[in-house]
Amino acid sequence: MLADGFLFTDHYQLTMAQLYFHMGLHERRSQFDYFFRAYPNYGTHQAGYAISAGLGPLLDWMADTRVGRAEVAALRALQTSTGQPEFRSDFVEWLADCGSFGAVSLWAVPEGRVVHPNTPLAVVEAPLAIAQILETPLLNQLNFASLIATKASRVVEAASGGSVLEFGMRRAPAWGANTASRASLIGGAEASSNVGVSLDLGYPSRGTHAHSMVQVFMAVAGGELEAFRAYADLYPDDTTLLVDTVDTLESGVPNAIRVFEELRSKGHEPKGIRLDSGDLAHLSVRSARMLNVAGFEDVRIVLSSQLDELTIWQIRNQILEEAARYDVDPGRVLSRLVYGVGARMVTSEGDSSFDGVYKTVAVEDDAGDWQPAIKISDSPAKVQNPGRKRLWRIYDRRGVATADLVSLNGEQVTTPVNLIHPTQPGVSRILTEPEVSRIEPLLVHVLDNGKRSADLGGIEQARARRSADLQQLDPGVRRLVNPHTYHVSLTPQLSELKASMVRSFRSSIPS
Amino acid sequence: MLADGFLFTDHYQLTMAQLYFHMGLHERRSQFDYFFRAYPNYGTHQAGYAISAGLGPLLDWMADTRVGRAEVAALRALQTSTGQPEFRSDFVEWLADCGSFGAVSLWAVPEGRVVHPNTPLAVVEAPLAIAQILETPLLNQLNFASLIATKASRVVEAASGGSVLEFGMRRAPAWGANTASRASLIGGAEASSNVGVSLDLGYPSRGTHAHSMVQVFMAVAGGELEAFRAYADLYPDDTTLLVDTVDTLESGVPNAIRVFEELRSKGHEPKGIRLDSGDLAHLSVRSARMLNVAGFEDVRIVLSSQLDELTIWQIRNQILEEAARYDVDPGRVLSRLVYGVGARMVTSEGDSSFDGVYKTVAVEDDAGDWQPAIKISDSPAKVQNPGRKRLWRIYDRRGVATADLVSLNGEQVTTPVNLIHPTQPGVSRILTEPEVSRIEPLLVHVLDNGKRSADLGGIEQARARRSADLQQLDPGVRRLVNPHTYHVSLTPQLSELKASMVRSFRSSIPS
Repeated sequence: MLADGFLFTDHYQLTMAQLYFHMGLHERRSQFDYFFRAYPNYGTHQAGYAISAGLGPLLDWMADTRVGRAEVAALRALQTSTGQPEFRSDFVEWLADCGSFGAVSLWAVPEGRVVHPNTPLAVVEAPLAIAQILETPLLNQLNFASLIATKASRVVEAASGGSVLEFGMRRAPAWGANTASRASLIGGAEASSNVGVSLDLGYPSRGTHAHSMVQVFMAVAGGELEAFRAYADLYPDDTTLLVDTVDTLESGVPNAIRVFEELRSKGHEPKGIRLDSGDLAHLSVRSARMLNVAGFEDVRIVLSSQLDELTIWQIRNQILEEAARYDVDPGRVLSRLVYGVGARMVTSEGDSSFDGVYKTVAVEDDAGDWQPAIKISDSPAKVQNPGRKRLWRIYDRRGVATADLVSLNGEQVTTPVNLIHPTQPGVSRILTEPEVSRIEPLLVHVLDNGKRSADLGGIEQARARRSADLQQLDPGVRRLVNPHTYHVSLTPQLSELKASMVRSFRSSIPS
Repeated sequence: MLADGFLFTDHYQLTMAQLYFHMGLHERRSQFDYFFRAYPNYGTHQAGYAISAGLGPLLDWMADTRVGRAEVAALRALQTSTGQPEFRSDFVEWLADCGSFGAVSLWAVPEGRVVHPNTPLAVVEAPLAIAQILETPLLNQLNFASLIATKASRVVEAASGGSVLEFGMRRAPAWGANTASRASLIGGAEASSNVGVSLDLGYPSRGTHAHSMVQVFMAVAGGELEAFRAYADLYPDDTTLLVDTVDTLESGVPNAIRVFEELRSKGHEPKGIRLDSGDLAHLSVRSARMLNVAGFEDVRIVLSSQLDELTIWQIRNQILEEAARYDVDPGRVLSRLVYGVGARMVTSEGDSSFDGVYKTVAVEDDAGDWQPAIKISDSPAKVQNPGRKRLWRIYDRRGVATADLVSLNGEQVTTPVNLIHPTQPGVSRILTEPEVSRIEPLLVHVLDNGKRSADLGGIEQARARRSADLQQLDPGVRRLVNPHTYHVSLTPQLSELKASMVRSFRSSIPS
């Protein structure tokens, strides 16, 4: 299988790498920035922040991956359109010797952190040919994981303290399912139904039973009641029953209550019911009432079926409106809800790709000096920030993040902080010492010539970082719909470098 | 890594499997159907057909996957909420012995075939516990691959004979990228930029160069012209140049023409230019004119940047309108276009999950007779078809597919064919012998107790099946927007079984 190894990359990375080899530029140190241009936009609503994810698995893959015999044989066999070898022997031999990520240095924002557009979230410094080949796997891993962590974070916010369980594996993108489950945990989901990856991460997977169990009993071993009873018998302290196989209110809930009473008489407390179809808010209220009347006021109500942040928001609002009509306390219904969220979370329904890009920002020249690189665009927002850079977060007096600031590599950022608008250099703002409680560098040096140079912890640390960052984010920016715009600024030095490069480029184009 | 093995499944599959074990039902033969309920709906438009994909990799995974020591250790360590082992020793021992897919029989519609809703696309017959555990990986693999093959087929249709290249890896869903590249090829893409999986499939990957190459030259080795020249020097018979790094019409195309002239003077013909930003239709026309004037009328124009079926359709229409204004023949512009399609294809932007489900349809009873299973729903369209079934395609006199027909397992379908509406049994249609040119069984017996019982060929055969099926599909059904509805029907016997099961279920619910 070549598909999971060093050749998990785009074809043109290899043709360019060979060109650099041919020019003697392949081992030239170069820097590439990973950044995204816009928050996910789900059509009817757009995110106001994103969550960084995917770095851990990327680093593991980079550490394990190098060119082997299979890759060499495959590259030798590739032909140009005239039947010549596409990759020459000298280049393939160089790849056989140097085709690994052992010479890569990497600075990155740790997983779980809140991040914003047009800021360097990962900075790669590596021999040019290797940095180029790394582009595709880096984008592939960071883009998708950040997409799903962002969506999950929104779903968790919508749940307002209710547990979110990730149930999406069956409609997740094939082997991307494992990345999606992990990213959902980083985004704040409490657990995943995905057994393998959960165990790999040290997170017990979660789940109960499906309609099929009830159907099997109906076909050969009784009916819904017998199915529920058998399940409770085997899992007396973890009984959550799916009540909508036949009819939720006429059959499922009454049968569940009967089995719950049997459980209680044997000294066990039932855990919950699950609703997987119909008007989930209405059925939650009606089921809650039936459970209350029967004395099961603490039994959880797990909701599933096409949930996402907006459906959860709608369900909670509907419960607030309808509960009183059925003589049920709405707050108590809401507090017993658990959300099983599937396809819409693990595919980021509404915006299914994260627009992260990877751009050359600097290359060493013959003298060993870094030369900044830029790509011009007719759209000012798409002109990238040139040169080696750093990223800072500025917190206001209340400890709330007020701006992310991009500087050149050598700059030290201190108060008073001069924040220049990224595309309109005339627009700026100054934050004086009393207005700033903290200036935090966000990029961590995680790889030093292929060696891990920081321990960022595991999934638990990533979850804690997300949680802390959300606490420090303005509620207006956290809002699900129509959020405030978070400020991203440049230092005066970076702004001036960018402007001067744009000027010199424009003047070089023949008119 | 447990994540890619037998525990690549949902937690509840294991709790149900243990329940069946506990009841002595775990080795009971059972049947499950895989089917989908609705074609992908991209919001502003909905597909009129889907393309089956994912079977080959699923079968490979099933053949290679069994419970090993790591799985046994992980399962033994899982605990209930009261700290007891969640999975008992006897069940874990049974899994250690029998935890594989070696007792699974499978009937499936081959990859590449056109398929329709509410028809069995895969039928699993296996010991109940194993069939249950298989649900998640089967859905995971078939759903995503079919989603992408369907989207790719639409993109290829929109290209009207122009080549489609899959360029989506960087925004594809992590390791799902490999599934997406393969599915795109099944859907009719000519090639992929994904090197590893392309080589695994025996399909050379494709690609040229990125903006970064031009930027690197600008920073340390000259400019765009030098970059183009170096590329042409190394790949003289495969020179496609990306012309929008600086300014497409002012810099990129003129520089490309200069390098093309140099190539030609050395006896080589240039291949193409690539446009990756801006008004692609307009730039295609303007670039075509410049290339024509310079004598490069056959050079291809590769388009990329946020393409999907609708943007391609729009670009082609705009070219038809604008070409004459620039004294260019629109047909000749269209015929030189190549489409590099990325994120929107490999994530199925607009509808990012395929709604395929896997439902119990029959279980053997104590006497060894198959008992049909059903799940009732308030929505008639969601009541599943019970029992062991077969699937047939009926072709009309012209050889065009006119209906898919679901029958019970024992039935032989011959003319006159009686087609009953799936949810309104009173609506039917009869096709007599002169109206029918062919009746084709669609399910192939691919696994017989774990052994491959049919060779469906590789990716080339899947591509050929798609191509043949599209030829036999009504143009109204193929239409990109607002397609005709294809008919899916039941035989009278199946329709009657379904109706009688629904009646007996309704009467069993307490009222």
